[in-house]
Amino acid sequence: MPGTIDKKLEELGIELPVPAAPIANYVGFVRSGRLLFVSGQLCDAGGALIATGKLGSQVTVEQGQAAARACAVNLLAQVKAALGDLDKVVRVVRLGGFINSAPDFLDGPKVMNGASDLMVAVFGEKGRHARTTVGVTALPRDAAVEVEGTFEVS
Amino acid sequence: MPGTIDKKLEELGIELPVPAAPIANYVGFVRSGRLLFVSGQLCDAGGALIATGKLGSQVTVEQGQAAARACAVNLLAQVKAALGDLDKVVRVVRLGGFINSAPDFLDGPKVMNGASDLMVAVFGEKGRHARTTVGVTALPRDAAVEVEGTFEVS
Amino acid sequence: MPGTIDKKLEELGIELPVPAAPIANYVGFVRSGRLLFVSGQLCDAGGALIATGKLGSQVTVEQGQAAARACAVNLLAQVKAALGDLDKVVRVVRLGGFINSAPDFLDGPKVMNGASDLMVAVFGEKGRHARTTVGVTALPRDAAVEVEGTFEVS
Repeated sequence: MPGTIDKKLEELGIELPVPAAPIANYVGFVRSGRLLFVSGQLCDAGGALIATGKLGSQVTVEQGQAAARACAVNLLAQVKAALGDLDKVVRVVRLGGFINSAPDFLDGPKVMNGASDLMVAVFGEKGRHARTTVGVTALPRDAAVEVEGTFEVS
Repeated sequence: MPGTIDKKLEELGIELPVPAAPIANYVGFVRSGRLLFVSGQLCDAGGALIATGKLGSQVTVEQGQAAARACAVNLLAQVKAALGDLDKVVRVVRLGGFINSAPDFLDGPKVMNGASDLMVAVFGEKGRHARTTVGVTALPRDAAVEVEGTFEVS
Repeated sequence: MPGTIDKKLEELGIELPVPAAPIANYVGFVRSGRLLFVSGQLCDAGGALIATGKLGSQVTVEQGQAAARACAVNLLAQVKAALGDLDKVVRVVRLGGFINSAPDFLDGPKVMNGASDLMVAVFGEKGRHARTTVGVTALPRDAAVEVEGTFEVS
């Protein structure tokens, strides 16, 4: 029987992908006590990055928001793989957003809202999180956005 | 009756601002167990950023230090909002410092000392923290410095 | 009597350095409960940085990997200083990798594997960690790589 959060994902039309299997000596998530630390996720969807390049030159804010949302969906796929059941998420504790930015791009927070809004759409009040957003020089595979997450879980 | 740390702030002439209310689907802090995760704070003071632009081109190390100190004050404002009483801080666990940097700016740690020194001035030994300082391409609103924090609280 | 991990380090020919003493108001590590937060470590080895400058222009991927490995060795030196005995490491929870990058450098994860591989060589399965890798504009002392770590400890 699907859990509450699974139903919410269905309502939102979100299908969780198979989480990315790291191709090196790290893993998608590690749990320690009640905290689940999830590796930085890129904006893959449907088998490819949905936005590459830098905000402020090659990528629009709207494209960046969609990219941040995709990162958040990929975080949820990792959490689902970790817990089996997303109803075990007690709280989204923290998101760290890294925006692939031209040096004069100042709207990182608007981009990152794509990830934050997804968390609140899925989890409601317990989706509200602490957040840090910074603009970085380069990201793996030229992804437009990378987001890491920390979750309190039961 | 003001607590020990409140008195220390008064001695230091530091008035905590009303903490920034996030204007999106995130919050200033989340507590999980004994850890308090505080969102990245910019160098606002008195209603405006006290330094904008990049270290190494538009902002001096001294201005950057003042900016990092302002970020730290804003972290404390969030902690106060979270706990009511700063005496409940058991330890400043970790600060993450993001310095808006020209590509050849190497003195991020000197800048970040503005935040670290404030923590030790306020909390003494329990203000000493683990720290990571990096130079980033761009920060929200062109802030010179952004600092996030993790605190152990009772 | 050397512990299991100390023997493994010896087998691998790794001698832990005296951990860097921060020259400011922060420390190399802070423990909170079962989590040990270690400050960002640069790629020092034998008293000097082993690689300076940016990946994608001045530093090769191979040099970057060696640099990331050196950062990981320095993390272990801090953990040893914190715990006395590396056998008390229950799990490497998370590594955060910051690669000093030219704007078009996309191979941060390959560089960061130098750190991840070291953790698994030393700790085996419990060395596998969550990981976030980003390319930054500038690092302290122009280091090619900086890595921070979170460890679960007993």
